[in-house]
This record gives sequence, structure tokens and C-alpha cells, in this order.
Amino acid sequence: MPSTSFPLLETIDDPAQLRQLARAQLKVLAAELRGFVLESVSRTGGHLSSNLGTVELTVALHHVFQTPHDRLVWDVGHQTYAHKILTGRRERMHTLRQQGGISGFPQRGESVYDTFGTAHSSTSISAALGMALAAKRKGESRHTVAIIGDGAMSAGMAFEALNNAGVADCNLLVVLNDNDMSISPPVGALNRYLAQLMSGRFYAAAKNMGKTVLRPMPPLLEFAKRFEQQAKGLVVPATLFEKFGFNYIGPIDGHDLDSLIPTLDNIKGLQGPQFLHVVTKKGQGYKLAEADPVAYHGPARFDPAVGLVKSSTAPRLTFTQVFGQWLCDMAAHDERLVGITPAMREGSGMVEFEQRFPDRYYDVGIAEQHAVTFAAGMACEGAKPVVAIYSTFLQRGYDQLIHDVALQNLPVVFALDRAGLVGADGATHAGAYDIAFLRCIPNMGLACPADERECRQLLSSAYAQNHPVAVRYPRGSGAGVAPLAGLDGLPFGKGEIRRERQRQDSNAPRIAILAFGSLLYPALEAADALDATVVNMRWAKPLDDALLRQVAEGHDALVTLEEGAIMGGAGSAVTETLNAAGILRPVLQLGLADIFIEHGDPAKLLAMQGLNAAGIRAAIAARFPAIDVAR
Amino acid sequence: MPSTSFPLLETIDDPAQLRQLARAQLKVLAAELRGFVLESVSRTGGHLSSNLGTVELTVALHHVFQTPHDRLVWDVGHQTYAHKILTGRRERMHTLRQQGGISGFPQRGESVYDTFGTAHSSTSISAALGMALAAKRKGESRHTVAIIGDGAMSAGMAFEALNNAGVADCNLLVVLNDNDMSISPPVGALNRYLAQLMSGRFYAAAKNMGKTVLRPMPPLLEFAKRFEQQAKGLVVPATLFEKFGFNYIGPIDGHDLDSLIPTLDNIKGLQGPQFLHVVTKKGQGYKLAEADPVAYHGPARFDPAVGLVKSSTAPRLTFTQVFGQWLCDMAAHDERLVGITPAMREGSGMVEFEQRFPDRYYDVGIAEQHAVTFAAGMACEGAKPVVAIYSTFLQRGYDQLIHDVALQNLPVVFALDRAGLVGADGATHAGAYDIAFLRCIPNMGLACPADERECRQLLSSAYAQNHPVAVRYPRGSGAGVAPLAGLDGLPFGKGEIRRERQRQDSNAPRIAILAFGSLLYPALEAADALDATVVNMRWAKPLDDALLRQVAEGHDALVTLEEGAIMGGAGSAVTETLNAAGILRPVLQLGLADIFIEHGDPAKLLAMQGLNAAGIRAAIAARFPAIDVAR
Repeated sequence: MPSTSFPLLETIDDPAQLRQLARAQLKVLAAELRGFVLESVSRTGGHLSSNLGTVELTVALHHVFQTPHDRLVWDVGHQTYAHKILTGRRERMHTLRQQGGISGFPQRGESVYDTFGTAHSSTSISAALGMALAAKRKGESRHTVAIIGDGAMSAGMAFEALNNAGVADCNLLVVLNDNDMSISPPVGALNRYLAQLMSGRFYAAAKNMGKTVLRPMPPLLEFAKRFEQQAKGLVVPATLFEKFGFNYIGPIDGHDLDSLIPTLDNIKGLQGPQFLHVVTKKGQGYKLAEADPVAYHGPARFDPAVGLVKSSTAPRLTFTQVFGQWLCDMAAHDERLVGITPAMREGSGMVEFEQRFPDRYYDVGIAEQHAVTFAAGMACEGAKPVVAIYSTFLQRGYDQLIHDVALQNLPVVFALDRAGLVGADGATHAGAYDIAFLRCIPNMGLACPADERECRQLLSSAYAQNHPVAVRYPRGSGAGVAPLAGLDGLPFGKGEIRRERQRQDSNAPRIAILAFGSLLYPALEAADALDATVVNMRWAKPLDDALLRQVAEGHDALVTLEEGAIMGGAGSAVTETLNAAGILRPVLQLGLADIFIEHGDPAKLLAMQGLNAAGIRAAIAARFPAIDVAR
Repeated sequence: MPSTSFPLLETIDDPAQLRQLARAQLKVLAAELRGFVLESVSRTGGHLSSNLGTVELTVALHHVFQTPHDRLVWDVGHQTYAHKILTGRRERMHTLRQQGGISGFPQRGESVYDTFGTAHSSTSISAALGMALAAKRKGESRHTVAIIGDGAMSAGMAFEALNNAGVADCNLLVVLNDNDMSISPPVGALNRYLAQLMSGRFYAAAKNMGKTVLRPMPPLLEFAKRFEQQAKGLVVPATLFEKFGFNYIGPIDGHDLDSLIPTLDNIKGLQGPQFLHVVTKKGQGYKLAEADPVAYHGPARFDPAVGLVKSSTAPRLTFTQVFGQWLCDMAAHDERLVGITPAMREGSGMVEFEQRFPDRYYDVGIAEQHAVTFAAGMACEGAKPVVAIYSTFLQRGYDQLIHDVALQNLPVVFALDRAGLVGADGATHAGAYDIAFLRCIPNMGLACPADERECRQLLSSAYAQNHPVAVRYPRGSGAGVAPLAGLDGLPFGKGEIRRERQRQDSNAPRIAILAFGSLLYPALEAADALDATVVNMRWAKPLDDALLRQVAEGHDALVTLEEGAIMGGAGSAVTETLNAAGILRPVLQLGLADIFIEHGDPAKLLAMQGLNAAGIRAAIAARFPAIDVAR
């Protein structure tokens, strides 16, 4: 069990102090840091396994490089807790991922040490290369380091950056943090190749080399050359990364400061693009996380002495689980179904599907572009692909959705999890734009289930269509309406009136709220107070024109409501349809404002955006003051 | 000069006939085919260099594989003229890229031989892998072949697919058509590596091997094994592609049927993912195109005996040229400026910029994702990046624009060429969605210049902002308003009234047309007939609220006009703003309908969408019949 008192760590408020420490002290510091991370995350929840895996690497990087003058760019960024603790934010760690607290990812606004905001995978080499070349142009002598995991390395974007960087003349260091794990277990040829690099004598030789060859420390430049030759000779004849123009060094033990520090020190003296392969273990130092890094990837609060315990009360069914169950049931019903995930088996609820239908489960790696076109290819041959993807990650497969799926009008179902605000992960992960960016694409359908039952039904509806359809649903659980067992869908493109205005004799303006998705329930609550009609629109595309006309005829004003950007969203679909039909009605569009919304409690964030019952009611009353408001 | 009579070719209406021909006849066929392609393209215009380069490869693939049962997926797809000619479309080649004629790209609707629609780069391996695995699941025994150029191979998406395919158990063949050329000259580490593979003894050995080793033809399976061993031993010890899990064969001469056919025949017998490296020459067989493949990449009509001639009349200035000149002028004025292109130097008008500012010019390869985040990294270090990218290709950097640029509010300028309809390239290249998909992103600005002069001014305005701004402009030339020499911008987010309604005494409804972009000019023409006010809105985001309110106050109805999707477009920005302000006016939204629009003459396509002066006038008169229409 790691340290629980932190006397040395508490003296470090700036990496410059860390650079004063001797090697032996750094080891003590690393041990304390690991304990601090564990204790801190066990109190706040957050990413654990990845952060325990990068403690020594973080210490070594800040020790060797002159941060913040030298730039560290952490890929994905959820492994930066040690970095945050060492760069003056130790005492704010208890606010992690909470409203007004520090972010779970690097943020430029939070610290000068956070040189580039990351959260989506595989951006670090591109950003670091841009920074390195810009510094060079300005004549500034600095090192730029991208730290990227092996999972993130499988994304095409990282390859594009390697391809460009390998011929660039600048001081760029790519550190491959090879822990053989993205969130889901690793897949793909690159990963298999990395395992080969690490296996057997290569890795043993590397470890040995780190400890013996590097210890004597001759003058820097001469040594660097010798080291380079030896490393190449000893470790592996010519790696893939050398074919890309990088000088490859490694693999070395990423938990051994006696390997890390001298190696990084030497790399500092080398010219041109450098590639350091570091092997770490997710969850390192905390046995429970080492044994099950997936479970400890992003735990809620827990007692470190006990570990994660199953809640005694049954947790509420999440939309993710509704999708996972539907996927299994539909797969059992229709053997054409195939399930595709870009490395998000757990997050997307596909664990059971993989177990039950292993030959119909395709984890394509962190590769959203490929995932979408791969699905298109399968659909061409008569398969019925279901692509499970977070709304925010579909942004990365957008062109493929347009060019390969929609243009060819192929029947691919997109199950968009995390549509809307996502809470602790913050703005980088919010699914705020999918209604706007999908609605404008011809041939697409877009369903917005109001609750768990509808989610299952609308997935069935989407699956029954002969063209692409996305179903968007929020993170977590909804109103708690239990799904039905069958696989019947709801009518394509049709909504329903859920509450009729009752006081026909009133002179107050007749208001109808058109809800898209799970905000239907706060709308119903608000409507009781306002005596408004409530329409469950269900589909952002196609819009239920007939229902909209009918409702518009019978009401004086309309309110649209969605957990998504107002700009270009479902409310705009309503006004476009009214404009096209020549129907003139006041429309109040409620949804997400044109700002990035940071991390925090999801319910509070929605309330701040005026998207709870009280906010909806207040907004309507403010806009239509003549309305009867029940007291 | 290639053949100009085609007796053998004219007997081939189906690849099955081609499979009956002896090797010697196939060579005659290839020569005729090359002549036919040249003659055909010289009459219609279209892609030339790439199509002359793939003649023998096309013949060999259709000869060896049982198309359409076996699937060919042509990456990018503009090299498929020979494929089209051999698959029953010879007599329709004169309609190429014309309205109602055949497409310049493969299209599933056009032929069963076009198994997957391509046009954007680097999708073929993903699609082919999907097709191969789907076929395997159905128990169908077929080969699936992706043919991809070396330029396309540099895109991350191709890497994602390789990474996934290398561990897949299916009959997938990737043919790398290595012609050392995308549209712009090649860049990046992969390309340098491919050049190494081809250089010196490797390539010589490979050519030799193709002709000697393959000729004797022992029984297939045994031979395949020997061939495989020899190929690997002779050619190159362990290629990058083998590290990805592919069986690598090559490089072989892609213009030599005696190499191509036996090699492909043998590959057919091998199991698992195969990678064939074929070397071709763009423009092969037509000296002028061989000498300048860039100029002959996509020529207009020309006389094959003479070649391209400079037009004697000065061509009209294009928006692309306006951008290129502005980029040079602004770079001369501000040394922080850097120019970034994802492999579109010519198309984006950056040839002069590269010549004058080589150290500030970054061609990052076909790598849109990387291009955008690379720009973000540069902006972090104080550079002022201008990313020149077609509207349709920005779809591929969408997540990076949101996550890396907009969320961090970095000052990156996006110069969006080809916004709107693009003519001969058709639906795959149309820039129809950028207003909708950019407008919903916080911190973004989006300018829509009405003409060449405004394009330059609004680029300057965009550059002056301290946050991301995109400037969208159409393909080709505009109204012909000459740019001013200076670098003064126009006010950020402000439009102007261009024509005031004149007949104040009329009882007809007072109409104002709000034009976004170059449709301002047909709007002005229509407005003369209708006596409508015309507003040049200039900015889709931020919208000029004050001007909109003022115009709405003084008019009975508004018409919005844009060369982009109506759904979520600038017209919806207008209605959102009216809704938020509580202003009720009839709005007629004119723009692109919710369909994919195929290739054809741009002016005719716009007219078909009702987006010329007559169409605008007719639409307004139909919607507001009481309006005075001048006769």
C-alpha cells in the first residue's frame, strides 16, 4: 500500500524545487506522490489506473526538462494528476472535476504548465510538433515533449503527426507510454507489434541497459552518440518508428527513475525527432488497480483499504445499459447485426454483447474515422452495422458519416451515448453539437428518446430503416421508465402529445412545449404549473411536420426544448418547418447557450443553463408574461 | 502518342470478355485503353494523369479477379476511367462529369462494378475490410481489393484501417499504387520510406523477379509459398507493412502486365491480409502528362496533339487566387503568419506563398486532422496560422476544430475554399454543410464574402481577431469586383444594406432579402424586379443583430439566401435571433435543399436549386403573392 503521509511532497510547490532533489529523494517523492494520488482520487473519484502508472514518468520529465519553459503535452490528459500535484495544484486536488474546481484534464487557463488542453485521444504529437516548429521559427531554444499512450497511438491522427514530424527538423520528443491498455483492452496490429518489441530479450536487454550502460555517465555528447548506437544495436534492429524518421530509444522501464532520468538527460542532447518507448503498468503500486485496471480506470469515491465495493442498493438503469441490452436482444433476433466500437467496449455498454456474440463484435481501436467507413463497407455487403460511439467522438468520424454512409444512403445505426452535458469530464466530452451537425446531412435520421423505454424502442425503429439513423441519449440514467421486453419500434419520424392544455376558458396565451429527448420530464413538470401542452417530438429529423402544424394551429406560442446547442438545433428545425409552411408563431428556443460548459454536477449544470423544471417555467413565464402561472 | 483507334477495346463490354484474352492481347488492349482515356479526357476534361497511370493495373485486376463477384475498391476514385470503360461504360465516357452523365468517381448507383463510392481520400481499406469481413460472416468466398495511392496512404484513416486489418483473418488485398504523387508533390516520412523501398537494387530486383521468377508457373500453392519467401528475401528484409501484419509483396512495375498478372494470380492463393506494392507513373504513355503530372491532374478540354495551351484571354480572377494573393501580402506584413495545407497547394492557391515564404509554408500531407491541431499548437506559441482547406475536407478535421482550436479559443484562420456547389466533382466535394456545422461551435466566427473584394477584406478581418474565424468562399470566380490592394478589413460581425426598397407608397409587402455570400448578386438582380431591400449580411456568425432588428422593424417579411444547406444554415441563424428577440416576421429561407446534389454545370445546378436571380424572384413572388413584380 502506498504512502499516506507526504512530508517531502508537501515541500514541492513548483517543479523547480523538484529539480533540486537528489535521485534518492526523487524516489521518496515518487512514493509519496503515488500515495497522494491514490488518497486524493479515492476521495473525489476520477481517473486512477492511468495516473498511478505515470508517477515516475512525471517526476522524471519535470526533473530533466525546464518546465514550463520546456513544453509537456500530455495526450488524452487524464493521466496528469501527478503533473497537477507537482505544479502547484496539490492543495486543489480535492476540488477535482467538481464545479469551480480543477479540471480532470490539462487546461491552458488553469496553469502555465498545462501547455495544451487535451481530453480526446491522439492530439499530442500534432500539437507538440506545431509548438516545436513555432518555437524554432521564433529562435527560441526549448524542448517539446508529447507523452502518448499505446492506445492513443493507434488513432490515425497520431500517425499523421508522426508522418509529418519524422521529416521535421526540430527538437521534438515523443514518449510512448506503453501500458498495453487503453480503456478497453488493446487491439490492432500496432499493439501486437509493441508487444513484440517488449517481449523476451528486447525488454530484458533494455532494462539492463538502462541500469548498467547509463550509470557511468561520460561527457554528454560523446555519450549520447554511444548510447544511441548501443540502444539501437541492443534493443531492436530497426523499428517501425525509425522507418518514420524518428530516432527510437527503448523500451525502458517507466517505473524506474534510474532508467528514466539518465535516458531523458541524454535525449535532451540529441538533435531531430526522438522517440522514447517507456513501459509502464496501469494501476502501478496499488494491487487492486494493477489486477483490474479497467475497473479502476475511472472509479467513484472508494476506501483505498477496501477497494471498490458493489453498491448494496441496485443502481438505476443507465441509457448505456439499455443500449447494451437492446444490442444483445436484436443480435439474437437478427443475425445480420454487427456491433462496432472505437475502443469503448465498457463505456458503450458492449461487454455482454462481446461475450455472447464474439464474432459479431468489432473493436477497431481508437479509430473513429475507420469505424464509420468500416461500418459502411459492411453495410454494402448486407450486414446491419450498429456503431456505438459517444456524441463527442462522432465528431471525429464526421466526414466518413457524410461521405461514406449518408451519401451512399447505407443502413448504419449510430448509437450516440453521452449526448448533452456529461458532468465531471466537462466541455471536451460534452455531446452538445450532434443535432446541429447531423440534421443538415441528407438521408440521416436522428431520434431523441425521452426515457429508457423510448431509447430501446427508437433503437429498434432506427434499425428497421433502410438508411442511416442516429439515436442520441444522455449519460447516466433518465426518468426511470422501464424498457419493454420486445423489439417493437415506434413510428419513424412521429412524435406524440403527452399533455394537453386543460383550461380552455382562460385568456392566457396557449403555449405548447416541444421537447426533444429526456428534457421531456422537466417540461411536463413545468407544464403543470403553466398549463401548457407538452409534445414529445422524439425525432429531430425527420421532424413530425403534421404534428407540428397541428400543434401550431391550436396554440399561440411554441417553446422548443433540447439538451444540445440552440444554434442549428432541433428548435431551429421547428422554425425552419414553420417558415417553410408559412406559419407565424412566437417560438422560444431553449437549449444549450453558445458557450463551452465546464465540468461539474450534471444536474447543477443543467439548472445553470435553465434546463430544469424551474428554469423552463421561469423562461416561459418571462417570455410570455400573460401566461397563467399556478402558485 | 497512344493509339487512337480501338478495335479490340470496342469488343469489351464486360470484364468477363477481357478474362478470355491472352496476355499478348491484353497488352494491345491496354495500349488502346490508354489511347481511349486520353482522347476521351481531352474532349470532356477530367482527371488525366492518374488515369493514364492505372491502365495496366486496371486490366490486370479485372483479368485476375472475378469482378463483380470479387470486389474492387478504388481509393479517391478519380483513377477509375479505365475501370469504367472496361465495365460497360465506354460509350458513356463522353458524358463524364456532366449533368445526367456518368460520375468522375465510382458510384454504387452507376454500376455493380462500383462497389463503394469514393472521392475523399483514404477510405478504401476501411471499406474493403468491412466488405471482406461481412462476406466472410456470410460464408461467401470472394476477394476484396483496395487500390490506394501513396498520397492517400499518408492519411490517418488509412493507418487506422491497416492497424485493424493487419490482425483480421480475411481475404483482403491492399494494392499500394505508388506513383510518388498526390495532387501536390508528396511530403512526409512514409513517402520518404516508400522511396527507399523503391530505390536501387530493391526495385531492380523486384522487376527482375516479376519477369523471371514468376514465368515458370509451378502448381499454385507450392509456388505461392516459394514466391512469398523469395519476394521477402529478395526485396526488403522486413517492411513497415509487415510490422502491421500484412504479407508484403513488391515493389513491382505497375505498367508491366507480365509482372502484374502472375503476381496477382499468386496472391489470390494466399491467406490473410496481403499488401502489394506497385510502382506506376502518373501520366504514363503521354509525354506531356509524364513531364508535368500536376498540370495534367485535372485539365479542361485540350488537343492531345498540342497539349495544354494558355488561354489568350486573361481568365477571371478566382477566389482561390484572391486568397493566395492575400496570404502573400499578409505574410509580408506580419511575420507571425504561417500557412498550412493538407496536401492541396495548387487547389488552395498556395504555390506563390510556398515560393516566397518556404519556411512559413507547411504541407502536412493528406492529414486534415493533424493539420488543424498542428495549427492549434503553433497558435499556442504565438504564431498566426492560416489553414487553407476545402469546406468538404474540413469535415475531416471537425473534432480538432472543436476540441483543439475553438475550445481553447486559439486565433486560427480557416480559409474554406469550394464552399457551396462545386460542379463537375459532384456531391462528394460540395461544401454544403459548413455554415451549419461551424455556426454551432462556441468562439467561432464565420464570414461569407459576397465577392472577390470582400473575400480579401474579410480574410484580413478574420486574421485580426483573437479567436478562430473561418472565411468561406465558392469555387471559381465571383461577381468580378476587383480586390483592393491594402490589408484593411471590414468590421467584425457587421453587414450592410446594399439596396433600399424605393416605392414607399406601395401597399405591397415590404420585403428584405438577407444574403450571405456570393448570392448577393443574383439577389440584387431579383430585388430590382421586386423592389426589395437587399442586405449583405457578410457574417453567418456572429450575426449582425442590430442590423437584423433594424431591417426587421422596417419590413413585413424577410428572405434569407445562402449557398449552403438550409437546415441549420444562416437563415436559421436569422430566425433564432428573431425568436430570441421576440420579433415575429414571415421568413422565407432559400438555400440548398436537403438532398445530395450530383455533378454538373455549377450555374445550371444553382438554377435547378432556384438560386439564380430568376429562381429567387420566383420563390419570393410565390411566397408573397401580393408583392409588386415589375414586368
